[in-house]
Amino acid sequence: MPVDREAAAQAQRLLDAKTKPRRSLGMLEDLACRLAAIYRTASPPIPYKAVVVMAGDHGVAEQGVSAYPAEVTAQMVQNFASGGAAINVLARQAGAGIVVVDMGTKAVAVPKGVRDQRLGPGTSNMTRGPAMSRGNAVLAVETGIRLATELRDEGIGLIALGDMGIGNTTSASAVTAVLTQAPIEQVTGHGTGIDQGRLRRKIAAIQQALEVNKSDPGDPLDVLAKLGGFEIGGLAGVMLGAAAGKIPLILDGFITSAAALIAVGLCPQMRDYLIAGHRSLEPGHAVILRHLNLQPLLDLHMRLGEGTGAVLAMHLADASLKILAEMATFASTGVSDSGA
Amino acid sequence: MPVDREAAAQAQRLLDAKTKPRRSLGMLEDLACRLAAIYRTASPPIPYKAVVVMAGDHGVAEQGVSAYPAEVTAQMVQNFASGGAAINVLARQAGAGIVVVDMGTKAVAVPKGVRDQRLGPGTSNMTRGPAMSRGNAVLAVETGIRLATELRDEGIGLIALGDMGIGNTTSASAVTAVLTQAPIEQVTGHGTGIDQGRLRRKIAAIQQALEVNKSDPGDPLDVLAKLGGFEIGGLAGVMLGAAAGKIPLILDGFITSAAALIAVGLCPQMRDYLIAGHRSLEPGHAVILRHLNLQPLLDLHMRLGEGTGAVLAMHLADASLKILAEMATFASTGVSDSGA
Repeated sequence: MPVDREAAAQAQRLLDAKTKPRRSLGMLEDLACRLAAIYRTASPPIPYKAVVVMAGDHGVAEQGVSAYPAEVTAQMVQNFASGGAAINVLARQAGAGIVVVDMGTKAVAVPKGVRDQRLGPGTSNMTRGPAMSRGNAVLAVETGIRLATELRDEGIGLIALGDMGIGNTTSASAVTAVLTQAPIEQVTGHGTGIDQGRLRRKIAAIQQALEVNKSDPGDPLDVLAKLGGFEIGGLAGVMLGAAAGKIPLILDGFITSAAALIAVGLCPQMRDYLIAGHRSLEPGHAVILRHLNLQPLLDLHMRLGEGTGAVLAMHLADASLKILAEMATFASTGVSDSGA
Repeated sequence: MPVDREAAAQAQRLLDAKTKPRRSLGMLEDLACRLAAIYRTASPPIPYKAVVVMAGDHGVAEQGVSAYPAEVTAQMVQNFASGGAAINVLARQAGAGIVVVDMGTKAVAVPKGVRDQRLGPGTSNMTRGPAMSRGNAVLAVETGIRLATELRDEGIGLIALGDMGIGNTTSASAVTAVLTQAPIEQVTGHGTGIDQGRLRRKIAAIQQALEVNKSDPGDPLDVLAKLGGFEIGGLAGVMLGAAAGKIPLILDGFITSAAALIAVGLCPQMRDYLIAGHRSLEPGHAVILRHLNLQPLLDLHMRLGEGTGAVLAMHLADASLKILAEMATFASTGVSDSGA
């Protein structure tokens, strides 16, 4: 469903009447207008917020592509449930609820407070065949769509996206290489902090996965099934469900943005619902942002994931809406307007 | 007084023990460490906050260097007092008190709620002689020092700086050209939105002011007196007073950063108390940030002043301190630490 460009134009007219030089709030004004377009009103209220953090394990971790062992995925899910991770701290600051979903980790049991949507104990090793069946790719996306619909029904009006999954930058690089047609080396980075030796192994694993799977760039579900992850599919689904419910989405870093490539591939209008919370240090992230023509709000040299960059940017979304709602106008104050 | 580098190192050790890859929160970690150094503790509490907005008029406005007439300074001070300006909206969002000071505008009367520290009805036209006497330059700085001391006594622990003054980018460009030795053209921009014709007039006015005044780059008070403004002197004073009281300062854009050049010129250790809230669109601002070796936290293409960029960045200061205080450690959670 297209966003409402007239609401955006009306929001810009309102901003131009405020007591400040025209356009002097820069990207904050752009953000207010984009939110107005998504909400279909030039006067949106401050939204209730949630961050959806989806976790999954990756068979490709067997190839030694990460600095961390696979069990860290489940350990971090437990950490999210206990409230001690970075995303818990930043979501509390943002006043955002946090929804943690196990889309398919190696965890023996899913901790209390975490949604159990496991499609398997991690994906299969994509260097030897598809990461998952096409059926599971569809299920992953459908799970995300259902969750977004549920959040909308609870009154959530702004969703940040986050991820957790050892090995998932390898999967995201493979997805990005296929869907943006960029060279593998250009979209593959140091993830959680691997050295040059592991980086070479990671690039080799991606090359092999692409050769073995021959995924179809014109079929995003095929790319998801062969090279993606359960959490990547789930995140793409949250985006589709949220957009259908007129809810803007704040992307985090590389993983959520790779999921966005799949969501936009399935529904190109989807792009207008996406806000780039920040630019991560992963080189593939910048490639996706350019591909989707999104300007990141923050650039703090972060590379943590979990939704941390997305949730930090919620403050700017609120700021832009408060400027729109609360600032006085030239007419109401008698401040001279030069028209500059 | 030097900041405490050991407290910064201890904060980094605490951050390295948290459940995240080392340094993966990038500039948020740097910020936490810098705040720890200023507060002399690796566990600083979340500070009470204020934004100090200082206003002054500029004699050089007679030269037609601005898109707005000089009376807008006083009109905007009234707008600040009424709560309708952008800085009011963003300070409310940040939970920051707002202190508006008339350092010397053309206002007939100072509105209720605004501090009257007027040193004159604007400065003199610096193209014909010094903007103010050396005595008034000293008074302006002393006023700022006293205000910072007062805020510290009230329990304020983080100060954002803002400015208002038609013509003050012209003054800031002149100060910056002298104190950074950069060419005038490189540090002179479109201010509130002037066209190319006015920009040429602005550059010519700065050239003339520099020739007429021959200020001494080794004497920051001389530069302030000859080329500065009452609000620029006051802001430099707030910085000196805050640093003496171990309070970090968040700079806004070009004007507050030009004031920082004066403060750092008077007391070089001052630099370690400065946080660059954002990078403004004014070209001179980037020159000052490089000169002071400060990395801006935000880059939202803003050019409004008033402290808007500084106050937006307060959220990131809080976020960095909350990460330091609230995140769990590898040891406490049993999450595997690869050391990456």
